[in-house]
Amino acid sequence: MALLEDLTWRYATKKMNGERIPADKLNYILEAARLAPSSSGLQPYKILVISDPALLAKIREVSFNQSQVTDCSHLLVFVAWDGYSEERITRVFNYTMDQRGLPHQTMADYKQNLWSMYEPLGQEWHAQHAAKQSYIAFAMAIAAAAEQRVDATPIEGFNADQLDTLLQLKGSGYHSAVLLPLGYRQESEDWLVNMKKVRTPMEEFAQELTLADLTNAEEQAAQ
Amino acid sequence: MALLEDLTWRYATKKMNGERIPADKLNYILEAARLAPSSSGLQPYKILVISDPALLAKIREVSFNQSQVTDCSHLLVFVAWDGYSEERITRVFNYTMDQRGLPHQTMADYKQNLWSMYEPLGQEWHAQHAAKQSYIAFAMAIAAAAEQRVDATPIEGFNADQLDTLLQLKGSGYHSAVLLPLGYRQESEDWLVNMKKVRTPMEEFAQELTLADLTNAEEQAAQ
Repeated sequence: MALLEDLTWRYATKKMNGERIPADKLNYILEAARLAPSSSGLQPYKILVISDPALLAKIREVSFNQSQVTDCSHLLVFVAWDGYSEERITRVFNYTMDQRGLPHQTMADYKQNLWSMYEPLGQEWHAQHAAKQSYIAFAMAIAAAAEQRVDATPIEGFNADQLDTLLQLKGSGYHSAVLLPLGYRQESEDWLVNMKKVRTPMEEFAQELTLADLTNAEEQAAQ
Repeated sequence: MALLEDLTWRYATKKMNGERIPADKLNYILEAARLAPSSSGLQPYKILVISDPALLAKIREVSFNQSQVTDCSHLLVFVAWDGYSEERITRVFNYTMDQRGLPHQTMADYKQNLWSMYEPLGQEWHAQHAAKQSYIAFAMAIAAAAEQRVDATPIEGFNADQLDTLLQLKGSGYHSAVLLPLGYRQESEDWLVNMKKVRTPMEEFAQELTLADLTNAEEQAAQ
């Protein structure tokens, strides 16, 4: 029951106390993100790890002044590829084949199929698709932090354009996708810590579906 | 070290053996997805749980004929909101306030700010944003399955338009985001099972960054 306990323990910490997290816990969290699966194994993202107070202060300015950005121990900035390209895909696949002791040619057909699907979809689709992949790694980091009893606050509330400028991401091939400050809760100043965790009820969240259900719905609609 | 062990154990199973997973494990995986965090707690997604062979066969037809779709025990179809609306947001926030014993009015300002940000971003942004949130729940389901030693294959390779038609999602306010067949590996027919798991090396994946680094880069660029 470990993961469910961890997910029940965690919450989007609203106030952190500035304490540092130990290096082994930070590395554990980063490793969980690194092991996350991604579409075709491309891992079209990386993580900027920021603990420099001067830089955190500037990031807070473009993150709606959220205090966790400066009161955290480390801020993880998940940055995703702006776009896919044959070169980027080839580089990852060649590395994978090298690691597996297989000829680069092994994935040639797969690569060709993948690129013929991706190419026409355009830059905006690429950027969104890469960002989605980064959310899988982001979630693994959240789960890993909870397991390590490190607090974390998933943050989407930032000005992406300003953050990309600040972090000199423009022209780098990456854009900021999502933020995760890591640290420890300051319970006395955190309005959320004792609030009930609320989620969609299970009967609404997960629904069984059969072909008969769909056929019945069609027949009803036709009446 | 539980999560890292689980993430090391798991892989994108290419061939499943058709065995059923017990109900308690299925429920555990769904519960992990349900507990996942989402932006503003909106949970703009749900899961269709499909084990009906007749429906799985039809889904396989629009999923590049991938065998896991029919050889799995249960297929989880993550479906995300097509768009945000004031009504949808209000419904979730009111439910949350009810569960916390607070007046609906408590989140009125927050809701107004949120909607004033979301409204101008348009339907396509909404749909992508909601899908991203579903990827966090998707990742938690992947982690939970691994912890339960249930195999799972993250699948993006499907024709979303055809799947949405098949599942009668069009006009329902939801669209299909991503698939997760759950089941058990058929090792003898799975080419991936014994392959080395390959990921971006850590030094490339996670990079420390300070304000001084950025300043230095600027100065170098100016020279």
